[in-house]
Amino acid sequence: MEQSNELQQKAKLIRKWALISTTEAGSGHPTSCLSAADLAAVLFEKYFTYDLANPLNLYNDRFVLSKGHASPLLYTLFAMAGAYPLEELKTLRKFGSRFEGHPVPNFVFSEAATGSLGQGLSVGAGLAWLAKRENLPYKTFVLTGDGELAEGQVWEAANFASHEKLDNLIAILDINRLAQSQETMFGHDIEKYVNRFQSFGFEVIAIDGHDLNEIDKAFDSATKSANGKPHAIIAKTFKGKGISFLENKDGWHGKPLKKDELQKALAELGTVDDKLSFKLKKPSQTKLPANAFGKIAVEMPFDKNKEYATREVFGEVLVKLGEKNKAIYVLDADVKNSTFTETFQKAFAERFGECYIAEQNMVSMAAGLSRLGKIPFVATFAAFFTRAADQIRMARVSEANIKFAGSHVGVSIGEDGPSQMGLEDIALFGALPDAVVLQPSDAVSTAKLVPQMVAQKGFTYMRTLRSKTPVLYDSTEEFPIGGSKVLRQSGNDQLTVAATGITVFEAIKAADELKKEGINIRVIDCYSISPIDKEALRKCLHETKRRIIITVEDHFEHGGMGDFAAAAIADENGHLIKMAVTKISQSGTKDELLDDAGINASHIVTTVKEMMDELVENVS
Amino acid sequence: MEQSNELQQKAKLIRKWALISTTEAGSGHPTSCLSAADLAAVLFEKYFTYDLANPLNLYNDRFVLSKGHASPLLYTLFAMAGAYPLEELKTLRKFGSRFEGHPVPNFVFSEAATGSLGQGLSVGAGLAWLAKRENLPYKTFVLTGDGELAEGQVWEAANFASHEKLDNLIAILDINRLAQSQETMFGHDIEKYVNRFQSFGFEVIAIDGHDLNEIDKAFDSATKSANGKPHAIIAKTFKGKGISFLENKDGWHGKPLKKDELQKALAELGTVDDKLSFKLKKPSQTKLPANAFGKIAVEMPFDKNKEYATREVFGEVLVKLGEKNKAIYVLDADVKNSTFTETFQKAFAERFGECYIAEQNMVSMAAGLSRLGKIPFVATFAAFFTRAADQIRMARVSEANIKFAGSHVGVSIGEDGPSQMGLEDIALFGALPDAVVLQPSDAVSTAKLVPQMVAQKGFTYMRTLRSKTPVLYDSTEEFPIGGSKVLRQSGNDQLTVAATGITVFEAIKAADELKKEGINIRVIDCYSISPIDKEALRKCLHETKRRIIITVEDHFEHGGMGDFAAAAIADENGHLIKMAVTKISQSGTKDELLDDAGINASHIVTTVKEMMDELVENVS
Repeated sequence: MEQSNELQQKAKLIRKWALISTTEAGSGHPTSCLSAADLAAVLFEKYFTYDLANPLNLYNDRFVLSKGHASPLLYTLFAMAGAYPLEELKTLRKFGSRFEGHPVPNFVFSEAATGSLGQGLSVGAGLAWLAKRENLPYKTFVLTGDGELAEGQVWEAANFASHEKLDNLIAILDINRLAQSQETMFGHDIEKYVNRFQSFGFEVIAIDGHDLNEIDKAFDSATKSANGKPHAIIAKTFKGKGISFLENKDGWHGKPLKKDELQKALAELGTVDDKLSFKLKKPSQTKLPANAFGKIAVEMPFDKNKEYATREVFGEVLVKLGEKNKAIYVLDADVKNSTFTETFQKAFAERFGECYIAEQNMVSMAAGLSRLGKIPFVATFAAFFTRAADQIRMARVSEANIKFAGSHVGVSIGEDGPSQMGLEDIALFGALPDAVVLQPSDAVSTAKLVPQMVAQKGFTYMRTLRSKTPVLYDSTEEFPIGGSKVLRQSGNDQLTVAATGITVFEAIKAADELKKEGINIRVIDCYSISPIDKEALRKCLHETKRRIIITVEDHFEHGGMGDFAAAAIADENGHLIKMAVTKISQSGTKDELLDDAGINASHIVTTVKEMMDELVENVS
Repeated sequence: MEQSNELQQKAKLIRKWALISTTEAGSGHPTSCLSAADLAAVLFEKYFTYDLANPLNLYNDRFVLSKGHASPLLYTLFAMAGAYPLEELKTLRKFGSRFEGHPVPNFVFSEAATGSLGQGLSVGAGLAWLAKRENLPYKTFVLTGDGELAEGQVWEAANFASHEKLDNLIAILDINRLAQSQETMFGHDIEKYVNRFQSFGFEVIAIDGHDLNEIDKAFDSATKSANGKPHAIIAKTFKGKGISFLENKDGWHGKPLKKDELQKALAELGTVDDKLSFKLKKPSQTKLPANAFGKIAVEMPFDKNKEYATREVFGEVLVKLGEKNKAIYVLDADVKNSTFTETFQKAFAERFGECYIAEQNMVSMAAGLSRLGKIPFVATFAAFFTRAADQIRMARVSEANIKFAGSHVGVSIGEDGPSQMGLEDIALFGALPDAVVLQPSDAVSTAKLVPQMVAQKGFTYMRTLRSKTPVLYDSTEEFPIGGSKVLRQSGNDQLTVAATGITVFEAIKAADELKKEGINIRVIDCYSISPIDKEALRKCLHETKRRIIITVEDHFEHGGMGDFAAAAIADENGHLIKMAVTKISQSGTKDELLDDAGINASHIVTTVKEMMDELVENVS
């Protein structure tokens, strides 16, 4: 490469500001930036096509910083590209700065929030796969560390990328030998990485990650070759490269230099011109993602004499939405015949992704799709979303717009036993700020709620049931998010039973039984778990004789619907008693297990009677 | 092999009962058993050393059925070994049967609960690693499916196994081509599996999984060779093998035969003698795991004028426990210098496992260690336990005895930002039945609680803090699980603030400030989050003027300590108001972020005053 001297200076400028900004912050990971400075300099100098004014331009190349702790590198690169002055990097890690410790969406040039390691290649796979599906010309570059390659998710992503022939995906592996607490598993044994990525179907180029010419050749080859294989540029680097007392030295992970050490380091770098810059190639076109959040009404007739599984209705609605909204993509992890996303696959194979049994990669890929304006539905058994809990958490930090559908919730799935029962999914999604959690109990409410998942921007999670349930509602009824439905009431209700999903039917049965004994109770269907219908719950308290709400749910006791309901009435006088699953279940029939878990009609009847005895005196 | 005819008959007998039991159950996965019947028959006929009377005998070989849906295979094998009559298999999947849909500890010959795929190799790695560490002669056999090899965790386990030279680990890969919803990613392209496992450092033998001689040779080689490499027997098989209308046919995953189909299938098998059996080789010795749950008192002096990080104290206590209790093992995922398990590593390297950045494998390995009586502590950042949420869930189904320590909880970690903040960990662990969740706020309470994690059998989770905190307690105080501590009280407390961890100090500050204004409040430290101190909370309600408890915690609002507290007082008259984190945080100082999250002293003061105004009339 000709201008290598100037390019060397640019790499030095990256190093300079990675050091300055972290010292200014008093924390951060300068040495992790230094190892990748040369790789990044060549990328931004020659290969990265980007329209700074429109980060979401669909013709932009994408750069995913999987090793999120090297954020000062990312921030310096875009400063040098002209997005903002270098001086602003001195706000790194300060309250209110766009330059956080690890990249978040507040930094608009970041493709995803990173910092939980091993997720970037999946985000990149999502972006690269989208380019293939939508025939877009951009390349996706993912810069990973070496320590994070121990995360299994990396290999899920690698399998997906090679299986889907994502030759527009370029992984840049910064093999700097040193992890946080010690040397990585493989140190500088580059061959181990080469063998692994080759066996996973990658086109591999191993280089000296500090040799600008080798780097240039690697990018040149990786961006030109299109033989159906994703690329891995495996770069042997040194952590702390460029500063003698940091380079390849233990004990410098996540440590900024002290002021005097910084002066020493900057002296080593010599004079570096802050005016050096990257002139990014501009993409040939500007095309922004379309706004795709309009509400679509779905008309579906249901036979009141028949039973339907909400998971099956979910699949049918998805097809109707997919017809009208081309931004909808669906991902599944080899259970599409159980979640019923196969209905969508049959209709719109081009917008369906089979992720095989690799839930982590599936979720992070969805974050990538969301980044470019798509509306990804992600489906598996509710229980198996726990497999991707960290990816879900990080997608939420990314402010991704993802629709989750978890089937086979609760003990009511029956014979398959506890490993397949989703019993902590409300806790998982419900803990995340602003996540919407829905659980329709019948076909009509399902058909009304799925379209709202699309209209509602952000995280939405729907629990669907394995077994078929009767039709409860008229097709004219509306089911707004945050609402509920009263299913039984009278002028002299003793108390309220609030149910959701399968337990709605148990609550109805209990109410009808109690009525025969002259005890009236109110029954409400909390199909919207978060937000829960605060007003309705308060009204129940006020309008029932004993100011008691009993929540019943096929979910573990802590973190479920009951806790949302309790919070909603916290400043009211009244009592909320939770009925939920309190032990590990087993195999059996649905009815045996609902009984065994203590959440069926007969247990509700017993609890109602107990409450009437026990709490009658407490409540005025 | 000589007796191959008889052995063929035994394989047929396995097939017969896999078919009968699933038809009897009306659900299950017979075809997934049929593909592995020949592999399993050879293993049990010739290679599996086992003492049926003592499943926990430390000289027993271990057999992990990673493909848990093939449970009828497992159940039939042990029936044929003489553990119970074949006829009992007809209770498969019935309520109360030990033969559940997927293996659970109720079936005493199962090494772990399986059924969430891709976890068995990690459990096996834990068992095999333990044999190396304790110089035990047993071999660990892990039977996996092919679909589950898409799970990243498998590759985490593979890395660990080869890095730790676990040549006593034998993975048997049943490559039957068909997954649940379609063909697997690689179908019968055996080379793809061979390349992957070889590149991950395994000794690979590819065989025809229905050729008894090839199988025999593979086991012979894998059990004899000890060159430091773990073994992978990659067996090309056919799903449904042995029954013409099932073999290699789509659409038969997870489907039992109907009665008439069963008759047809059994006719194809021909007469098979139910008396055929496996005579398992008995191990040379009988040694059972020692009971290691005694309470150990730890005396540690702390200077009341100094501050300590609870995570650091945790590490020191761990060493003292490790001295006296040799069953304690510690696993960490490359953050031992942050969680302070490195203190243990320095003292007892032989009982420390560096798992690198692979949390899923770490947790499932711990389940393996627990199976053989060890007491594994598993440590990482609290946030990164979400990475292993499914493994944690399954370890709980396994009734594993694991001690989890999550550091860096809450927004109080400061500058690193949201990706590193543990804010859903109480929801994660708290949802699991009977899990103990602890959060000490100072050095003394930490030193008192860690020993109780060992004495308490089952799941125990401790949250530790990044920052140092003052010493609050005298070293003579006791901190029983399920208890709490009153830190401020008076004869005329208006209400109670219940805090935990870092917010304890904010609550104290708030109380002292309010006192200056003449407002007395009670402050309690809920160091035991689950079980929470129900009696103390009730007492607080009764003894404070306004019957109000305000919970304050550095955790997301839903699923945290506040929900445990609310449940504890559900049948009392009173109000519980939760103060917690309700949005995604950012980078900043600890104090800025506690303020920004609305959970610092000044917000507590404001909320207390609001409650006094708003709720005064509600409460009589």
